[in-house]
Amino acid sequence: MTAPVLAVVGGGQLARMMTGPATELGITLRVLVETADAPTALAAHETVVGLPSDADAVAALLDGADAVTWEHEHIPAEVFAAAAARGVPALPSAAALVHAQDKIVMRERMDALGLPNPAWTEVTTHADVEAFLAAHGGEAVLKTARGGYDGKGVRIITSAADADDWLAGRAAGGPRLLVEKKVAFTRELSAQVARAASGQVAAYPVVESTQRNGVCAEVIAPAPRLEPHLAAVARDLAITIARELDVVGMLAVELFEVEGAVVINELAMRPHNSGHWSMDGAVTGQFEQHVRAVLDLPLGDTAPTAPWTVMVNVLGGQREDLTSALAAVPDSGAKIHLYGKQVRPGRKVGHVTVAGDELNAVLTRARAAADIVRGGATGGGT
Amino acid sequence: MTAPVLAVVGGGQLARMMTGPATELGITLRVLVETADAPTALAAHETVVGLPSDADAVAALLDGADAVTWEHEHIPAEVFAAAAARGVPALPSAAALVHAQDKIVMRERMDALGLPNPAWTEVTTHADVEAFLAAHGGEAVLKTARGGYDGKGVRIITSAADADDWLAGRAAGGPRLLVEKKVAFTRELSAQVARAASGQVAAYPVVESTQRNGVCAEVIAPAPRLEPHLAAVARDLAITIARELDVVGMLAVELFEVEGAVVINELAMRPHNSGHWSMDGAVTGQFEQHVRAVLDLPLGDTAPTAPWTVMVNVLGGQREDLTSALAAVPDSGAKIHLYGKQVRPGRKVGHVTVAGDELNAVLTRARAAADIVRGGATGGGT
Repeated sequence: MTAPVLAVVGGGQLARMMTGPATELGITLRVLVETADAPTALAAHETVVGLPSDADAVAALLDGADAVTWEHEHIPAEVFAAAAARGVPALPSAAALVHAQDKIVMRERMDALGLPNPAWTEVTTHADVEAFLAAHGGEAVLKTARGGYDGKGVRIITSAADADDWLAGRAAGGPRLLVEKKVAFTRELSAQVARAASGQVAAYPVVESTQRNGVCAEVIAPAPRLEPHLAAVARDLAITIARELDVVGMLAVELFEVEGAVVINELAMRPHNSGHWSMDGAVTGQFEQHVRAVLDLPLGDTAPTAPWTVMVNVLGGQREDLTSALAAVPDSGAKIHLYGKQVRPGRKVGHVTVAGDELNAVLTRARAAADIVRGGATGGGT
Repeated sequence: MTAPVLAVVGGGQLARMMTGPATELGITLRVLVETADAPTALAAHETVVGLPSDADAVAALLDGADAVTWEHEHIPAEVFAAAAARGVPALPSAAALVHAQDKIVMRERMDALGLPNPAWTEVTTHADVEAFLAAHGGEAVLKTARGGYDGKGVRIITSAADADDWLAGRAAGGPRLLVEKKVAFTRELSAQVARAASGQVAAYPVVESTQRNGVCAEVIAPAPRLEPHLAAVARDLAITIARELDVVGMLAVELFEVEGAVVINELAMRPHNSGHWSMDGAVTGQFEQHVRAVLDLPLGDTAPTAPWTVMVNVLGGQREDLTSALAAVPDSGAKIHLYGKQVRPGRKVGHVTVAGDELNAVLTRARAAADIVRGGATGGGT
């Protein structure tokens, strides 16, 4: 029997959580991990140790692979070139992925597509920032176009002086910068779709996500009390972006809900924290779906298996030995996922999901279980 | 972070399907596989190649393990001795496992516990068989006490002459033999329970299983139209057996339903084919549950996540390249599991589950998907 080989760049929890579904589908998952003790190293079927900038490691990763995909956006052009030279489909493509790598490229494209951006502009000078602040109520969000994640590369500013250090970095050859109007949102939503190489699209229910200190803390699927019209708008937005940008794999569109409308926050072209609930709460989880999509297999059913599923992240806290937590969680319905990482304060080291019929009960149970796994600490933070 | 290490003897699909849940729980699964291309070899976190009779391989398997368990019953005494010498809990224990290894020991114990056996007796001579046949309508089931599985070591006899070759084998030092009354059953049921080292027990819904040529073909969870009283009897029977035999891990009690009662057919002390539905149809699948039980973690919720879940085995048929089948299954709700095995006619090479609200539709869909994976052949079989 010939097992398709799917190569993955990145040895964190997202690649790790692809391994179980890949095993069940009879697919060999070969992962390029940064270090031999990366979360995915032991879990993957085959492991290549190295950085994406290491040509020999990339060659070993691609050798005989049926496709190559990514668990993060930081993929150098050389990897795409090496895949192209070997005829290995590299998905999502560089042309798609740039919209998840570069916030200026993304905003420009969303504008061109007529999709709902906040007011924004690229800034290179103190005067640029001053003008934007003056036009938008004296407060804005300053972002680096590239390199930010989990709250890094993002800063709230109330005066142009707040931007001067980053502007100096920009002038010295650092990342381009943009400012965005600080959206007075009522909550954050996430719309996820899978798109296969064939063009087939499957949308997940739109979920509500809660961030703390710029890091995803909690997700409720589906988003409670979301107007059906707005849910459809959010879903169709994600489908449009997937098609127009030719995304293959999972796409997450992070959205702000504001006054009966949605505004685009960020894009991620990979399984996303806001979709972890689907591992336990949907017929087909996002990790299986990503594997199917990039290998151009038919997509699975995205229907939820329970009225409500809640996902709570476990951020590194007081407990060092996370697996001891398994023995301490009394809720037999709590699904616990640990990433095999060293615990550091605020680091995502696992998550818990609970599914059920009554949202408040599900929320309470999921938070309680996550708190036990974390060790009763507040989760620290950045 | 310290990851518990669970050692498993046996590299087939049952060990393979423990790997995904072990990964999610942050547990390292180290598997003793017969050959480097066994189904579990690539999927396991750590692999030791060797037979259970290979003392060096067993030592490598046990080194630093928190517990050792089995995916089949053929565990030599030396493995238990090696585990005991290292202080590694070996579960289920030899004292429990003998009831799944030896049908005479099992029948004697069930009789002693007052649990429902069919009429049976050990036979050593032609006259023994003749007497049993005469007393039970001229037809019986002849079994070897040890070594049988999937229809092997079992023979329907209608005359004592049908037993002569096995009796000669027995006289020459072969396995002990028993005859059982052929039960005129209406259907076969399976009652599964998990029991943790602490004694905690969690029962799954009783399911209906259909065998073809002595091999499990199809499972419906829960068993349709099963009288609630009889479902409780079957469940309590399994709980009693788990407790009385001190089983730790998953226990499957295969039962015949006959005239409003149940009769015990066989015991299996490991995840069992009749429980594969639970991977996709219950909050906690049997593979996660087995891992939890033998590591003495709290057991997970066994509640079904859908009104009906149907599992259909994929027996080797005309399709050699099983993963190509993934592209051919149009049912987005069918969950496909492939074991990474070479295809041989009649060999279990995968299974499909479908869950839903309406049994007939679910059955039809699961059978259709399994048929596509198999390649449209009848599955052949022994």
